Amino acid sequence: MKEYSKSKLNRVKRGQNRAVYDIEKINTILDAGFIGFVSYIYDGKAISLPMAYGRKDNKIYLHSSQANRILLSLLEVGEMSMTVLHLDALVLARSGLHHSVNYRSVTLFGSVKKVENTQEKEAALYCFMEHMMKGRWDEIRAMKPEELDRTLVVEMTIETASAKIRDVGVNDEPEDYDLPIWAGLIPLKQVAFSPVSDEKLSKDIQLPNHVIEYYNKHK
Amino acid sequence: MKEYSKSKLNRVKRGQNRAVYDIEKINTILDAGFIGFVSYIYDGKAISLPMAYGRKDNKIYLHSSQANRILLSLLEVGEMSMTVLHLDALVLARSGLHHSVNYRSVTLFGSVKKVENTQEKEAALYCFMEHMMKGRWDEIRAMKPEELDRTLVVEMTIETASAKIRDVGVNDEPEDYDLPIWAGLIPLKQVAFSPVSDEKLSKDIQLPNHVIEYYNKHK
Repeated sequence: MKEYSKSKLNRVKRGQNRAVYDIEKINTILDAGFIGFVSYIYDGKAISLPMAYGRKDNKIYLHSSQANRILLSLLEVGEMSMTVLHLDALVLARSGLHHSVNYRSVTLFGSVKKVENTQEKEAALYCFMEHMMKGRWDEIRAMKPEELDRTLVVEMTIETASAKIRDVGVNDEPEDYDLPIWAGLIPLKQVAFSPVSDEKLSKDIQLPNHVIEYYNKHK
Repeated sequence: MKEYSKSKLNRVKRGQNRAVYDIEKINTILDAGFIGFVSYIYDGKAISLPMAYGRKDNKIYLHSSQANRILLSLLEVGEMSMTVLHLDALVLARSGLHHSVNYRSVTLFGSVKKVENTQEKEAALYCFMEHMMKGRWDEIRAMKPEELDRTLVVEMTIETASAKIRDVGVNDEPEDYDLPIWAGLIPLKQVAFSPVSDEKLSKDIQLPNHVIEYYNKHK
């Protein structure tokens, strides 16, 4: 399968020219971020909260303490949706209606289950950490069994998804191009600044390579 | 009223030491962004999608074409929730469990209504545009009556809200501080890059002050 099949759940209704169902493109958008907005129903109302995630193939991993009301509620329902957004530019047009943003967003739908097995749990947390910062897991203190016990790990299997991408310039009304109004893009990007050592860190501990690599990639 | 009263809807359940109900602090977080995740229920499932917003006092303004399924569904239900997040740092600890992020997030709950009156509609769109980029509305081509007609404007009245803020350093287990593991923060920020003029822009049109001010504030 190279593309998610379209159903009434994932079909993009507005701006279909921006719709993407290609699995590889969707995974690229997921891998460019690590915070997703997870939606759930509480007391009949839809709420969404940001959560960090990891991805491996068609699985998304979330974790929290064992008492987290969102994950417990998702497990009860057995399914979830999650949305990830990257904002790429402000699009400043000559008229109000054509103002827009360039962005890449993905909405996933799928089933969820609790990861019970200790080895699978650790593998899921490894995936989660590698997704956030490649190479870090192998250099930190290993998880203790009681820490693993206190952690709730949820695995989502992506069943369907769609993405929307806008990555073009300004589109104005034909008669507006001659107006003496500046139009263009302001590119936006989430960037990393220089790492700041913990004040309790011993002075002889150097910045590790995985942190330097992360910084160089995101600065 | 200086603080939103706590109910089962907005009370922060996990990490109560990070909870904020102060209205001014919540407004500051809202005004630092312009994209919110609006949640709605579709076919029994909770979904959230990113939308641009403006704020004035306790009102949030959203707009779309008249056929947008999210806004129409919110209007049918008469209420909505919206979440805004700013990611401020990766928090890299000595053990996996203490990895975290610094962030400011707000979740709003309130009633929604359609803005019907043309003058109120224009005022809402002005608020929306000023929120995204101060000073731009006055320099672009005025909205035409038929453009206003084609635009659906929704006003949310914030009824309750809560914020969560994490803005501290690394918290590790007491016995882990002596481990030879680098720990610290990597600050993250969404920044603006140099404005890129529309390729169809006449060469004698200069960058306007409102764009220069935006860029200087966000670069």
